[in-house]
Amino acid sequence: MPVNLTPPLPEQLLPVKGVALGIAEAGIRKSDRKDLLVIVLDASTKIAGLFTQSAFCAAPVTVAREHLSGQGPGNPIRALVINTGNANAGTGKEGVANTHTTCAALARLLSCRSSQILPFSTGVIMEPLPVEKIIAGLPAAVANLKADNWFAASQAIMTTDIVPKAASKQISLDGTTVTITGIAKGSGMIRPNMATMLSYIATDAALSQPLLEEALRHAAENSFNRITVDGDTSTNDAFILISTGGAGNPPITDRTSTEFNKVQDMIAEVAAQLAQAIVRDGEGATKFITVRIEGGRTTDECARVAYAIAHSPLVKTAFFASDPNLGRILAAIGNAGLEGLDVNKLQLYLDEVLVAENGGRARGYREEDGQRVMGQSEITVRVALNRGQASTVIWTCDLSYDYVKINASYRS
Amino acid sequence: MPVNLTPPLPEQLLPVKGVALGIAEAGIRKSDRKDLLVIVLDASTKIAGLFTQSAFCAAPVTVAREHLSGQGPGNPIRALVINTGNANAGTGKEGVANTHTTCAALARLLSCRSSQILPFSTGVIMEPLPVEKIIAGLPAAVANLKADNWFAASQAIMTTDIVPKAASKQISLDGTTVTITGIAKGSGMIRPNMATMLSYIATDAALSQPLLEEALRHAAENSFNRITVDGDTSTNDAFILISTGGAGNPPITDRTSTEFNKVQDMIAEVAAQLAQAIVRDGEGATKFITVRIEGGRTTDECARVAYAIAHSPLVKTAFFASDPNLGRILAAIGNAGLEGLDVNKLQLYLDEVLVAENGGRARGYREEDGQRVMGQSEITVRVALNRGQASTVIWTCDLSYDYVKINASYRS
Repeated sequence: MPVNLTPPLPEQLLPVKGVALGIAEAGIRKSDRKDLLVIVLDASTKIAGLFTQSAFCAAPVTVAREHLSGQGPGNPIRALVINTGNANAGTGKEGVANTHTTCAALARLLSCRSSQILPFSTGVIMEPLPVEKIIAGLPAAVANLKADNWFAASQAIMTTDIVPKAASKQISLDGTTVTITGIAKGSGMIRPNMATMLSYIATDAALSQPLLEEALRHAAENSFNRITVDGDTSTNDAFILISTGGAGNPPITDRTSTEFNKVQDMIAEVAAQLAQAIVRDGEGATKFITVRIEGGRTTDECARVAYAIAHSPLVKTAFFASDPNLGRILAAIGNAGLEGLDVNKLQLYLDEVLVAENGGRARGYREEDGQRVMGQSEITVRVALNRGQASTVIWTCDLSYDYVKINASYRS
Repeated sequence: MPVNLTPPLPEQLLPVKGVALGIAEAGIRKSDRKDLLVIVLDASTKIAGLFTQSAFCAAPVTVAREHLSGQGPGNPIRALVINTGNANAGTGKEGVANTHTTCAALARLLSCRSSQILPFSTGVIMEPLPVEKIIAGLPAAVANLKADNWFAASQAIMTTDIVPKAASKQISLDGTTVTITGIAKGSGMIRPNMATMLSYIATDAALSQPLLEEALRHAAENSFNRITVDGDTSTNDAFILISTGGAGNPPITDRTSTEFNKVQDMIAEVAAQLAQAIVRDGEGATKFITVRIEGGRTTDECARVAYAIAHSPLVKTAFFASDPNLGRILAAIGNAGLEGLDVNKLQLYLDEVLVAENGGRARGYREEDGQRVMGQSEITVRVALNRGQASTVIWTCDLSYDYVKINASYRS
């Protein structure tokens, strides 16, 4: 039951010059579902990537990091291969070998080197990757390669997602039209610890490698690093930004230029839209909650308060129940570990309703006002700390029976 | 549905010389339930206490800290007053005034000073304390004062607890019999951040104030600071250790003495029994899970791994489902943030079953073995980090539909 989230329309997803996508049903875990995606890239492509910080990162993450670090003139990344149904994580040396086998098989089909392939997996952890099924499925995916396959691609990377996630924007750079299109998957095991899902965003705008990396970090900080569903971090997370240069613009190399700022902002907008879609499709979610913390000393302390609220099971279940049991939010703020926090100075708002100030319930607060806001499907929690100038915003969802149901039956 | 937890038998709870307990039904939140407890103490009593670290601590916590710091020869603490149904937290200055009013009313009944009373509250946050109901209930509680009222006292401090929690031990110190009896409440909002519930343990053994404090810290470290239900920390937590001296032993002042070690160990045993009872009665709990981390560099890093496992909603829901989806435990270990952790060196056991080693599933592991252990109501997760000599143990429970149900309807 995603919160106010409609699937993208296939025709809204604009092709990106230099990118072709092919999908297949490889029967990796279940039959009759798209579970294999190949993205083939022009030789002019540059790529930047961010990966999970888990010490138990999956074999494909290790290999993708390695291959990505080898890219350069004369050795571009030529394709991405993504399977669902199996994470190839917690699989030891055999898992790494299986990843190399997958890359080699695709490289043969595409006539490139194995090190020019970036591999990705998502699904169940600690089960051997059925590599023979993936290899058997690759020719169908390659035969299916099309520039306007973004919608099918967004479906092919889903696991517990209910709604496919994709977004597209077009802007003009000095008369050249450039396109940005991206897809993402993610629903549970979502936490801001770069990254927290799989997302692939491509643009045909040409950018230098340093600016591509900068645009990636900027987008992550304002999107995938600002969401949480359940505070769990995956072994397989990756956020990949692709620049093909197919638009024909002069490569952007100046970080102070209008062009870079326009492209960077647009990439961040696509990423934020995908990140919010992940929360809206959060496992069992019935509410989309924006947590805005203002007046902190640093962005970091604002984020600590925001996540203390967003991770509290008691706060999340109160949202699920539409119960204005708002003392639970105060308790969560109290647990954020902010040094010298004067709770008598802060204000707590639910949308525009002032709930608490002077260390307790606000004088004008009426339960019916809190109840009205709690009944909505979209709610903003705002805390004014009144001790500095920093602020931050994160997005989260509630904790429902269905979260437990989905995660108590995921493997079955 | 508490996990293998039977209520204590009233006759097993031994009176502690110098302690009398009286309960009343004050109708604070609901009628016809014990919700007010008064504990009256002999003038020879010494007390040590640990309180919540929440910045949003409740008014009674602030006042109890203040009164406790004033105790000394000629100014002992003479009574504790505990109400359930309302936490008097997030209530600002009015909350503090209401706490002082409660202490003053009890002081009048007991002919002592208001500063000789320690106040405690537990229940809903951010609602005004119905202080007039408490004051009206105090005479009945005082009229009810009895030495053998520990069982009724354990019932009177329950909130979402299903089973009352109490324990009792007796030992001989150099020929003098000393008694230790304690009660606790707690079920949700349980996290190791001293303290995480209410617990009152009394002994008639005489100890010096410094040794009483030491015994309190030792007990907390090995009991209430080693449990987690949902990772939420309360605004009202307190753990109080009372020494009345009523046993008549020569006061224990030497921390290296056999007597001190015996008493300290026995107090820690009572505390551990109460702490485990809190987890067994965890909101919605269907499994009691011991997490043992060995071979870490420091106790602190062992605890980080233990809590990463114990707080992961994905691990907790897998336990609820009896699903040996054990890759989720590896993912949780990977997220503990241990610097330089080599995942290829650790072993993961479920009871005696070796599940993972060399970065993946153990060669001899069979799903049916994991399934068998996951089906039990008591499970030990053991991780050998193999990088040092430190170890730790914590206790937790699973995450079930009922956790959500209880917390989505707590105020109703």
